[in-house]
Amino acid sequence: MHDVGLLRTAVGAPVAPPPRLLMGPGPITVDPRVLRAMSAQLVGQYDPAMTAYMTETQALYREVFRTRNEATVLVDGTSRAGIEAALVSLITPGDKVLVPVFGRFGHLLREIAERCGAEVHVREVPWGQVFTLEQLEEAVREVRPALVALVQGDTSTTMNQPLEGVGAMCHRHGALLYVDCTASLAGNPFEMDAWEVDAASAGLQKCLGGPSGSSPLSLSPRAVAVVDARRSVEAGLRADPYADPLADGASPGNAPALARIRSNYFDLAMILDYWGEKRLNHHTEATTMLYGARECARLVLEEGLPQGIARHRLHGDAMLAGVRGLGLEVFGDVDHKMHNVVAVQIPAAVDGDAVRAELLHDYGIEIGTSFGPLAGRVWRIGTMGYNARKDAVLVTLAALEAVLRAHGAVVEPGGGTTAAQGVYA
Amino acid sequence: MHDVGLLRTAVGAPVAPPPRLLMGPGPITVDPRVLRAMSAQLVGQYDPAMTAYMTETQALYREVFRTRNEATVLVDGTSRAGIEAALVSLITPGDKVLVPVFGRFGHLLREIAERCGAEVHVREVPWGQVFTLEQLEEAVREVRPALVALVQGDTSTTMNQPLEGVGAMCHRHGALLYVDCTASLAGNPFEMDAWEVDAASAGLQKCLGGPSGSSPLSLSPRAVAVVDARRSVEAGLRADPYADPLADGASPGNAPALARIRSNYFDLAMILDYWGEKRLNHHTEATTMLYGARECARLVLEEGLPQGIARHRLHGDAMLAGVRGLGLEVFGDVDHKMHNVVAVQIPAAVDGDAVRAELLHDYGIEIGTSFGPLAGRVWRIGTMGYNARKDAVLVTLAALEAVLRAHGAVVEPGGGTTAAQGVYA
Repeated sequence: MHDVGLLRTAVGAPVAPPPRLLMGPGPITVDPRVLRAMSAQLVGQYDPAMTAYMTETQALYREVFRTRNEATVLVDGTSRAGIEAALVSLITPGDKVLVPVFGRFGHLLREIAERCGAEVHVREVPWGQVFTLEQLEEAVREVRPALVALVQGDTSTTMNQPLEGVGAMCHRHGALLYVDCTASLAGNPFEMDAWEVDAASAGLQKCLGGPSGSSPLSLSPRAVAVVDARRSVEAGLRADPYADPLADGASPGNAPALARIRSNYFDLAMILDYWGEKRLNHHTEATTMLYGARECARLVLEEGLPQGIARHRLHGDAMLAGVRGLGLEVFGDVDHKMHNVVAVQIPAAVDGDAVRAELLHDYGIEIGTSFGPLAGRVWRIGTMGYNARKDAVLVTLAALEAVLRAHGAVVEPGGGTTAAQGVYA
Repeated sequence: MHDVGLLRTAVGAPVAPPPRLLMGPGPITVDPRVLRAMSAQLVGQYDPAMTAYMTETQALYREVFRTRNEATVLVDGTSRAGIEAALVSLITPGDKVLVPVFGRFGHLLREIAERCGAEVHVREVPWGQVFTLEQLEEAVREVRPALVALVQGDTSTTMNQPLEGVGAMCHRHGALLYVDCTASLAGNPFEMDAWEVDAASAGLQKCLGGPSGSSPLSLSPRAVAVVDARRSVEAGLRADPYADPLADGASPGNAPALARIRSNYFDLAMILDYWGEKRLNHHTEATTMLYGARECARLVLEEGLPQGIARHRLHGDAMLAGVRGLGLEVFGDVDHKMHNVVAVQIPAAVDGDAVRAELLHDYGIEIGTSFGPLAGRVWRIGTMGYNARKDAVLVTLAALEAVLRAHGAVVEPGGGTTAAQGVYA
């Protein structure tokens, strides 16, 4: 072996993270059942046990998304991977895409759509508000997009964009509708079929109670038709790998080069061929993440989707009452807040980062900071997934009261826990 | 909740995969220590414990890649995600890219480079062979590429492309060198700095002994300079998110639109900002996969990289001797075979898929099939990571002998295990 003079790195100790109660906007504390599922040993990629788990996982996520879409799969990456897979597969360069932006993750959709080569048109409302259906329709009339890309719950502002009627409106104007429901799914109503959503993607690390790293995604038959028209097959999988893949139109089943999806990893036509009956090799499925994603969906459906949403609503209401009971102001249009996260204005008297640091280091509780125009102005406190629980809410409020007082804020003694208990009573 | 008439899905049983000995080309049986590491609870994305784990993981993979590259990170996705991140970040549309192809994964590099907008030039040798340095230099002289993209170990053919001198040759001609070392890393020598490799990526599911889903990646300072010149910052992270991101050149630190990296998820400039001192938010790191990737590297370095490579060589030699001892023919140029996988020609007398199925269902042992022109012609048998072990080799050979005989092949009684024991003696 060459001596390149590397400094030998100590291999370090086995992983042993400090105990934390994760009450930020996600990731949150993972349900221990999910971690146990993820400790199961692997089987091969085409083992009948593996393909059965894949098929079960598809069926479970159809229920979670409330859809009959056959094309319901996992994308192997974080929630952002699911967003990019949907957009790069649906957007042909030059397509007009409308992105209504009401927070950071709307800007992310805009940015990803631009990188996909779309002609992006943005409409904005100030952070802390949502769009009306009329505003959305007016924008669609003006832009005449091929695709509308919209966030449901934007954790940067905590807002939950109403979606009822949006899909039908898009379809009346010949547009498809993509929704990023990463932060909202399973903690707030999401009705993929009833709302005529054509593509939706999520992540495990919010209300689903799992770790980041797998993105459930579903496509309507309309969206599948778009993706199918852009299908191509890898040369290395064809019987004759020496055929010229630049002559795409000439290979049976391969799309013309201009329509070809710009990404291989995120090519949903290929990903559907891998998850579907063809089982055509694409990536090597991230089995451990699949085990985790499957267990997340099992937890949601065992509890019952409506029951789980009601639980998120209850504990979100308790946290909202609690922070107000401490005398804190809440940011944004609370009537349109997601159940699972609240943005709390940082009192002028305190250093927001110092409060967060003391909560973390002395109490083992994490709450979130914010981005862009809200950086330093609000904390974001989540009550989601495994942590949408009474004890998690009450202990967070009690600790926050103690830390705020220690940092010189005037807070109502017991005001947080008392108000939350009032919601539970 | 709307009634969309979903058929209620049974939530199914907890994950309980059948016990398998995975002796294919990967994924392979995960080292139980990696699974234990992955069962650890999460901490927050910017928890000091988390950022310390990220920093440790970078240092560990520098050792594994044999590099001093500061820019050594994980990409959150399977090994294919790492490939695409490297290529989409290094290739500006219109760049000339040379892809020397000697198997399926060379075709994959070609395909990904095409989708990145490169002008791709391919050189090929027949499956089962590798390139000489002279052949590679001749191609570089002809094409004058900005980037050469090369597989080190292509599991489709089992070949291990010699890389000594390739980086220096590329640099003499003004090209960068990317190497996909997914299948070879930690089981065969790989010397990122000594061989002047500018970008390399891998996966956990081969010699590293982990599950698929995280891709270690490293960039040389030359490669970082290319990526840095294409940097842009998300609008939602800027203090003024309403600034027009289409006016990219106008925003400090943002690259002109033409040079902008075509993917957000795979934008290595952003990923480096997330892993580096700026800790600028990008994706939400897949913490559980990070715990796993860290433990994989700890296992490799505890054993010692040269010792681990020698172990792969020993058990690979034993398997090679064993299949020959059974009277089977080996595919390809064995002098250039990777240590960790062998391609065995399927005897004319037997049905290859039926043999694999009986091995799997009756003996719990998985061996691999193949792709493209080798489909149905060879089995691929791996000895890698946790399964580069004497008992795994011997039990596979004993079972293969029994199954081959049951399927009508003429095999030397005890020929496989005896020959392997000879290597161990």
